[in-house]
Amino acid sequence: MIYLDHAATTRTDPAVAEEMTKWQTELYMNPSAFYQPAVRVRMKIDEARRKIAGFLNVNPAGIYFTSGGTESDNWAIRSAVEANSAKGRHIITSSVEHPAVRNTMRYLETKGFEVTKLPVDKYGSISAEDLKKVIRDDTVLVSIMHANNELGTIEPLEEIGEITAERGVLFHTDAVQTFGHIPINVEKCRIDLLSASAHKLYGPKGIGLLYINPGIKFGSMLFGGRQEKGLRPGTENVSSIIGFAKAVEIASNRMEEDAKRESALRDKFEEALINNIPKIKINSGASARLPGIINLTFPGIEAEPLLILLDSNGICASAGSACSAGAIEASHVLLSAGLTNEEAKRTIRFSLGRENTDENIEKTVKLLKEIFIEKEEHR
Amino acid sequence: MIYLDHAATTRTDPAVAEEMTKWQTELYMNPSAFYQPAVRVRMKIDEARRKIAGFLNVNPAGIYFTSGGTESDNWAIRSAVEANSAKGRHIITSSVEHPAVRNTMRYLETKGFEVTKLPVDKYGSISAEDLKKVIRDDTVLVSIMHANNELGTIEPLEEIGEITAERGVLFHTDAVQTFGHIPINVEKCRIDLLSASAHKLYGPKGIGLLYINPGIKFGSMLFGGRQEKGLRPGTENVSSIIGFAKAVEIASNRMEEDAKRESALRDKFEEALINNIPKIKINSGASARLPGIINLTFPGIEAEPLLILLDSNGICASAGSACSAGAIEASHVLLSAGLTNEEAKRTIRFSLGRENTDENIEKTVKLLKEIFIEKEEHR
Repeated sequence: MIYLDHAATTRTDPAVAEEMTKWQTELYMNPSAFYQPAVRVRMKIDEARRKIAGFLNVNPAGIYFTSGGTESDNWAIRSAVEANSAKGRHIITSSVEHPAVRNTMRYLETKGFEVTKLPVDKYGSISAEDLKKVIRDDTVLVSIMHANNELGTIEPLEEIGEITAERGVLFHTDAVQTFGHIPINVEKCRIDLLSASAHKLYGPKGIGLLYINPGIKFGSMLFGGRQEKGLRPGTENVSSIIGFAKAVEIASNRMEEDAKRESALRDKFEEALINNIPKIKINSGASARLPGIINLTFPGIEAEPLLILLDSNGICASAGSACSAGAIEASHVLLSAGLTNEEAKRTIRFSLGRENTDENIEKTVKLLKEIFIEKEEHR
Repeated sequence: MIYLDHAATTRTDPAVAEEMTKWQTELYMNPSAFYQPAVRVRMKIDEARRKIAGFLNVNPAGIYFTSGGTESDNWAIRSAVEANSAKGRHIITSSVEHPAVRNTMRYLETKGFEVTKLPVDKYGSISAEDLKKVIRDDTVLVSIMHANNELGTIEPLEEIGEITAERGVLFHTDAVQTFGHIPINVEKCRIDLLSASAHKLYGPKGIGLLYINPGIKFGSMLFGGRQEKGLRPGTENVSSIIGFAKAVEIASNRMEEDAKRESALRDKFEEALINNIPKIKINSGASARLPGIINLTFPGIEAEPLLILLDSNGICASAGSACSAGAIEASHVLLSAGLTNEEAKRTIRFSLGRENTDENIEKTVKLLKEIFIEKEEHR
């Protein structure tokens, strides 16, 4: 198998899985209990929180564990606007957000909030100038993703944060696609709320975090016990929290090297495709982009049959984002970036990761070449 | 270590943990993807859903995976009353619910809902007669737990369901403490919504379910992708869902035998305590009760120092529920059951489980005897 869908999810690092098993079968106690083994669990959770906070260079008191990116996005956006609705009911976001943000905004519109969606350029990037034009006195929140999951484009967070800080507006970023892959400077970017998820960085699924700037007005989305200072109740997902921290630790040690290697692999991949497949179009060519994501529009064949051909040769890739798979419709990200409906449907995302090799890329290019040359010959 | 806190959480069965590792490190693909390994993941999730539905004897289409009991309770209650608020804004619950229900009710009160809390008898049981008296035409939901987490008392669900069904009122039950421990007949009890959690039945933490009667009006609490038919979005917690199903499978094979063995052990434990510690009071003596839970008020010593003494001898037990540990205050359950504040603070819960032996009980009784005889002698 050649796995080229790392943006959808990653393999849990075996060292992470092994660590998790220990905290499931040996130190499995409820961290809210009094006895010593439970206190060890509590301490290990605190250590995990500190490790992750250290990686993000933020106050550990601002790290709250959630069930994943979707919950973090929902919580961030809804609680921020509800706790601060005295200031106003206007929210700004982009037109290329993940459905977890996009559909939360849609929900808030039904609750009387006004949502402005910033347009994007052909790479899916918003412009700070556009933000300046639409920000208002009654704007309570700006939510812009760190990097786009389909195009890999990194948004100008620092410029956004400068504007939101100056205007006293909360700033949320969905960093699910970038956390553990590229650096993020929470302080410099003036980020108040940040969502991340473990399964995109070789950690387990079902665990994420929300960083909440301890200085902001914020509320709870779930009600229950006193876990996570009562803000996110429910028995802690102990082994996954510890696995998340382990994944972050591993990422922090190799992030730079991985990014360098994956970028080189990606460039090689792109170049080979451009040189070998006539009329192929690269959509992911922004100058600020994630190391591993390639987004391409192929000539004359829809994504679905192409993915099936790839799959039958053991190659895993995606059409648009995984979350809307199952429904073949043009991605809102690609349409926002200016692709036609027809082009969007001919678009595939390859996303590289740790285990990919030169040979993986060569085999994939060879297969695609055969498919498209054969196709040409049949004409 | 003698672990007598199974109601707080259980050890993940090593067979469950092993199965989970496989789906983290080998078949780790995003189940929303198209390619064959991802389809295998999708099929395994469907199998897990069918297995669990089979155990509950409900339609698999009614099973939704969540991050645990707290999320399930929040979702059940809030979505039920919001989707059906045209009927009214009155909710009925008991005075001994878990904080996940209790605090969700408190939140709904701030949103204009009226909440009636049914009183309980000395074992923490509500009466169907009381329910009949307070149910109204504008009642939208009755939420009563299956069994109490502190006292182990099983509530009269069948009688409740008869009343709610007759009055066209939705019926939610928090079955976190009972699921996988004692049988539950969803159809006969006319249950519309049922919360459960894997970590109470030797499964992983961070995964639970909400059963939703497919015939009721119900909404989403989280917004995002299309997972769980769009009702509970977010990349599926694949390995935990599969681990949950594995834990259910194991439980279904040994539930009856475990219950018999644990009840016998519990009776032996209670008898030994009554015979050996003067003035001890058993609070968990309801005729319908969980096999493993014992709740006792000790004479003349508060729970905290007693738990520390137990802990220093390797015995793990809890004061009241684990979720409110860290804060030494009298449990609302015990106060509702008629204990004085002072009695409640002298109360300890032991909860038995699979790995407990006769020897565990003998050692614990011996230690408690020593503590209380020593105490008497010091007087």
